[in-house]
Amino acid sequence: MTILKLPLPDDFHVHLRQGDPLTDYARDMSRQFGRILVMPNTEPALQSVETILAYKKAITSAAPSLEPLMTFKIHSGLSQADLLAFKEIGVVAGKYYPAGVTTNSEDGVSDFESVFPVIALMEKMNFVFSVHGEEPGVFCLDREAAFIPKIKTLAQKFPRLRIVFEHVSTAEAVQAVLELPPNVAATITAHHLTMTLDDVIGDSLRPHHFCKPILKLPADREAIRKAAFSGNPKFFFGSDSAPHAQAKKECAYGAAGIYSAPVLLPILVREFEREGALNKLDDFIAGYGADFYGIARPTKKIELIKKSWIVSNNIHGVVPLAAGETLEWSLL
Amino acid sequence: MTILKLPLPDDFHVHLRQGDPLTDYARDMSRQFGRILVMPNTEPALQSVETILAYKKAITSAAPSLEPLMTFKIHSGLSQADLLAFKEIGVVAGKYYPAGVTTNSEDGVSDFESVFPVIALMEKMNFVFSVHGEEPGVFCLDREAAFIPKIKTLAQKFPRLRIVFEHVSTAEAVQAVLELPPNVAATITAHHLTMTLDDVIGDSLRPHHFCKPILKLPADREAIRKAAFSGNPKFFFGSDSAPHAQAKKECAYGAAGIYSAPVLLPILVREFEREGALNKLDDFIAGYGADFYGIARPTKKIELIKKSWIVSNNIHGVVPLAAGETLEWSLL
Repeated sequence: MTILKLPLPDDFHVHLRQGDPLTDYARDMSRQFGRILVMPNTEPALQSVETILAYKKAITSAAPSLEPLMTFKIHSGLSQADLLAFKEIGVVAGKYYPAGVTTNSEDGVSDFESVFPVIALMEKMNFVFSVHGEEPGVFCLDREAAFIPKIKTLAQKFPRLRIVFEHVSTAEAVQAVLELPPNVAATITAHHLTMTLDDVIGDSLRPHHFCKPILKLPADREAIRKAAFSGNPKFFFGSDSAPHAQAKKECAYGAAGIYSAPVLLPILVREFEREGALNKLDDFIAGYGADFYGIARPTKKIELIKKSWIVSNNIHGVVPLAAGETLEWSLL
Repeated sequence: MTILKLPLPDDFHVHLRQGDPLTDYARDMSRQFGRILVMPNTEPALQSVETILAYKKAITSAAPSLEPLMTFKIHSGLSQADLLAFKEIGVVAGKYYPAGVTTNSEDGVSDFESVFPVIALMEKMNFVFSVHGEEPGVFCLDREAAFIPKIKTLAQKFPRLRIVFEHVSTAEAVQAVLELPPNVAATITAHHLTMTLDDVIGDSLRPHHFCKPILKLPADREAIRKAAFSGNPKFFFGSDSAPHAQAKKECAYGAAGIYSAPVLLPILVREFEREGALNKLDDFIAGYGADFYGIARPTKKIELIKKSWIVSNNIHGVVPLAAGETLEWSLL
């Protein structure tokens, strides 16, 4: 049997939801990851020390082996005192959501410049600026490209701010990250690495492949693959695993988000192996992200075995990515 | 009250399904249309005199006021005798489905040239050649443009064949129809006239807006609108109204098709009125299509009144186009 030993990876973009389901979602992550960057678009959003600490506790209670890296949701009312308090409890990043671009972002930022004072404080206090880079109100396929000027403005105006262009989905975003200084990086999801819009609307309509930013064109996927397999430290893994109950996806107004957590490592190993880039996988999942966030690289290990298995059609009431498909790598 | 008197229109592209639901669907059509071109992608497909006559009878039994214009589904095994028999029972068109492009097209044509002998007979016998112009296996947004060379080949090879490029969805298809000789025309649906891909995946996922060819970009919609409102006789109305039970749309593998029948005239009047093109509406819905098919223009009339109503969220188990929305024109 072929066994593959990897560093226990980090996932720099995860949604764990709230309440009872969080327990299952956190445990699913803990089977494959040591640290996860937890997104703050909960209800209420993570915007105070109390909510952040309570959320962190809920995660570690559910999955004690998991180390959650906490974030806050950026809004213009945050003060220096707020940010200092976040710093004291170990929060690592603030997340910028343009209003209305994705799940629970109705209260996101509608006036870009209104949060510049907060961003200036983040730069000064060394928080990572994590951003859902889509311009609301623009045609769906153009939203990410339309947001790039804002990323460039931020990179220029806040030259010491570490910026993560989350879940890049277009060749334009990849190119922008390549061209911008080293303080601008990007996360890449497993689904943008492997699928295109064809997997949403090309045959039957596939609500479980519906996500924001929407899966794009084959040329976009190629640019993303090239970035991931190139070994460029600007690109690291963030799954954007985002579970929604089956009924919230299979309905007249389907929710955006792909539950990739249960299949992430088997899929990543498959893709890097196919491209002959297995030697680049460790850095992608357990190196460049930690380096960018300024934390130590993982020391623990995880092993996979080349043994096929069929992904369940439903995990805790959610239809996961690759449901019903056979994957060739299993967790040991 | 404003009353608008229109010729009782023709719909040159309709799916009525089979069995019990057909009764409701046919009656819905008969409330707004005098004649409808009935698509042959039933199970079994309309490929014999018996199935065509039985299907026609089912329609006229359900909706006696409706005149169904019958079609057959093209396959390479059709003989001259078959086509003669179709001619004798009044069939007006043959429909070409590339294999796998839409509902019940798995048995469609996979070898384009294999049906040239049938097409040659159709040209000789004066059948209209109706075509779902999408190239299978191509990226979803490019399928229609990729099929245009086949339309051009047919127009050149069969110069007396009347070709209808059905439900055009791209600026490229509109342009091709404009450039090709007068024997090439196109149908335009109400949904391609009014919506874009944003209405499928731009916000929540909207399975009831999912159709083939998929709704495209704003520039495509603009080209379609310009064609429809221009009064060019190459463009006429075909709704592609295609009901699927709600559960077949709101599921993990959603079916393609929009049930527009219950709202067609109110929407068309709204759109033509908005564009100041009401004087072009009669030809679009009750002129150019009849002319192209070589049948008399309608003589009966239908009246609409400017009185708002709310579209039902569910009609015979199907979620219609504009469900829950207010429309300002009603049928008298």
